[in-house]
Amino acid sequence: MLDYKLLEALVVVLDQGGFERGARHLGLTQSAVSQRIKLLEARLGQPVLVRSPRLAPTPLGRRLLNHAQQVRLLESDLLGEMPALGGGEQRLRLAINADSLATWWPEAIGRFCEHYRVLFELVVEDQEVALKRMRDGDVAGCICDSPTPVQGARSHGLGSMRYRALASPAFMARYFADGVTPEALRQAPAIVFGPDDRLQHRFLARYGVEPPFPHHLCPSSEGFVGLALAGLGYGMVPERQAERELSEGRLQEIDPGPHLADGRLVDLSPGYVIDVPLYWHHWRQGGRILDALTDHLLRLGDAWLAPLPGPKRQR
Amino acid sequence: MLDYKLLEALVVVLDQGGFERGARHLGLTQSAVSQRIKLLEARLGQPVLVRSPRLAPTPLGRRLLNHAQQVRLLESDLLGEMPALGGGEQRLRLAINADSLATWWPEAIGRFCEHYRVLFELVVEDQEVALKRMRDGDVAGCICDSPTPVQGARSHGLGSMRYRALASPAFMARYFADGVTPEALRQAPAIVFGPDDRLQHRFLARYGVEPPFPHHLCPSSEGFVGLALAGLGYGMVPERQAERELSEGRLQEIDPGPHLADGRLVDLSPGYVIDVPLYWHHWRQGGRILDALTDHLLRLGDAWLAPLPGPKRQR
Repeated sequence: MLDYKLLEALVVVLDQGGFERGARHLGLTQSAVSQRIKLLEARLGQPVLVRSPRLAPTPLGRRLLNHAQQVRLLESDLLGEMPALGGGEQRLRLAINADSLATWWPEAIGRFCEHYRVLFELVVEDQEVALKRMRDGDVAGCICDSPTPVQGARSHGLGSMRYRALASPAFMARYFADGVTPEALRQAPAIVFGPDDRLQHRFLARYGVEPPFPHHLCPSSEGFVGLALAGLGYGMVPERQAERELSEGRLQEIDPGPHLADGRLVDLSPGYVIDVPLYWHHWRQGGRILDALTDHLLRLGDAWLAPLPGPKRQR
Repeated sequence: MLDYKLLEALVVVLDQGGFERGARHLGLTQSAVSQRIKLLEARLGQPVLVRSPRLAPTPLGRRLLNHAQQVRLLESDLLGEMPALGGGEQRLRLAINADSLATWWPEAIGRFCEHYRVLFELVVEDQEVALKRMRDGDVAGCICDSPTPVQGARSHGLGSMRYRALASPAFMARYFADGVTPEALRQAPAIVFGPDDRLQHRFLARYGVEPPFPHHLCPSSEGFVGLALAGLGYGMVPERQAERELSEGRLQEIDPGPHLADGRLVDLSPGYVIDVPLYWHHWRQGGRILDALTDHLLRLGDAWLAPLPGPKRQR
C-alpha cells in the first residue's frame, strides 16, 4: 500500500495553503513536513507540487489528492459503522456556483447537517472549472448548469434558478423614462458577473441589442444585487435573492424617492425570466455520506428551485 | 508614440477573456486581432500574453496594460473637458475585499455614480493579492487592510469593519448549552472564509484554543452568513451584514424554535469585537475621476465603517 503519512502531508499542506500552516495543523515541524513531501516525490520520481507562482499540485499531485479524498470518504463510512475506531469528522469538498451559494444552498444543507456530522469545504466555481475540478478529483461533488457528468461521476437535475432583469426605480427613471427600448438599452449600464456570465447578453438579444454594451463587472452575488439596489445598473438577478432584498429595505435612507415606496428593485421586462438549470454532480464511489447528501438534495431541490424545463434527468 | 491600436487589441482580448470575444467586442475578425497582437510582440521582441493554462498577460503584457489604463484615465479627463471629442464612459478597475463588496461598498459608491458616468470593473481580492495587482498596474485602486502603499500609489484610512462571533440559537443550544468554554469550542465547527482568514483563529486564541479546530470553508460573504443562519457553524460576521440578516428573518420557516423569537443570530461573546482597518489605495496619477472617488470615499467612509483605532493615516 501507499505510505499514507506522506500523502497526508501533501493533502494538509495544500489544504492549509502552505508548509508552515500545514505543519502546525499536523503538529509537526515544517522541516518534517517538507521531508515527507520530498520522500513522496523521490519514491514517485516526479514532483507532486509546485511552489510558484503559488502553491499548487502537479497533475500527479492532483491524482494523489483525488485518491486520498476517496480513501477518506471510505474511511468515514467505516468509522460510522465502528465508532470504536474513533476519528474526526468527515470533510466534504464541493464546488458550488456563486449564486447558489448566496441563495438556496446554505438553507438546503442546514437540515442535512442536523443529521450528519460533516464539515464542508466549499469552492466557488462556475461550470467549466467546476467540472474540471470533478475530473481532477479535487472536489467530490459540484453544482453547475451542465447535465453531462465527467467519467466516474453521476449527475441529477435539481431544478432551475430563475433570473429576472431588475433595476432600482431611480435607475429606471434615469435611463428608461421613455420605456425599455433598444436605444435606451445601448446607453444604460448593465451589471455583469464576469466574462462567463451571458445572462445580460441573452436579455439584450431579445431587444436586438448586440455587444458591446456598457456594463459594470462585479464577481460577487451580493455585490451584484448591491450595485443594482444602489442604482448603478440593471442585471439578471435570481428571483429568490431579489425577494429577500426587496423585503429588506436597506437602501431606504439613501434614496427615498417616491418610486421606492413599494420595492427597492423593479422588473425591466415583467414576465420575462431566464431559467438556468442546475445539476448536482457527484462521484459514483463517494461513500455513504455523499450518497445521503445526494438523496437530500434530490428530495429538497424542488423546495428551493423552479422546476427544470424537461423531465428530471439522471445520467 | 506606441501604436495604440495594437495595445487596445491586447487590452480587449484580456478584458473579454479570449480572442473570439475580444474580436467581437472590437468589431474585427479573430485573425485581425491575433495579427495585431503578433505584431505587438514582434515589435517588442517578447511575448505579451500566454495562452495556457489560461489566457494571461506576461510581465511585459501587464506593464502595457498598466500603461494603457493610465492613458485611458487621462483621456477621460480630456474628454470631460472637451465633450466634442466624444468617446465612451470611463472604466475604473478596482480590487475590493469580499466583505466590503458584500456590505458597504455598493451603497457608498451609489451616490458617486449619480455624478460621474463611470463603469466599474471590480475584482474580489484580499490584501496581498490586491496590492500585487496595484503593483502590476492591473487595478487603479483597491481596498485592503494594509496601510502601506505600493510605489506610485497613495493610501488613506477609511475606517474599520467590525466583526462579531455569531451563531444561530439552535447551534448555540447544540454546542454551547453549558457556556462558551474552550472544551465546547474544540468541538463546535467554525466557519472560515479561506486559508487567509485568521479572524476565527483570533477569537479562539482568546479562549486558549489552538488550531486545528473543526471548521467549514466557505469563500463567499453571503454564503458565510447563510451557513451561520442555517446552524452549520459559528463565525466572525461583519456587524452591518449581521444587522441586515437579523432584520430579515429569512430562516424563520425552517427552524421556528423558541430561541428564534428575537434574532436569527446571537453573539457568542457579547461585547467582543475584532476591528479590521480598511485602507483605500489608488494611483497617484490616476486622473480626475480617481481623485474624485478618493474624495468621495474619504468623506463617506465614516458613515459606513467604525472609526479606525488611531488617527487617520495618509501616506
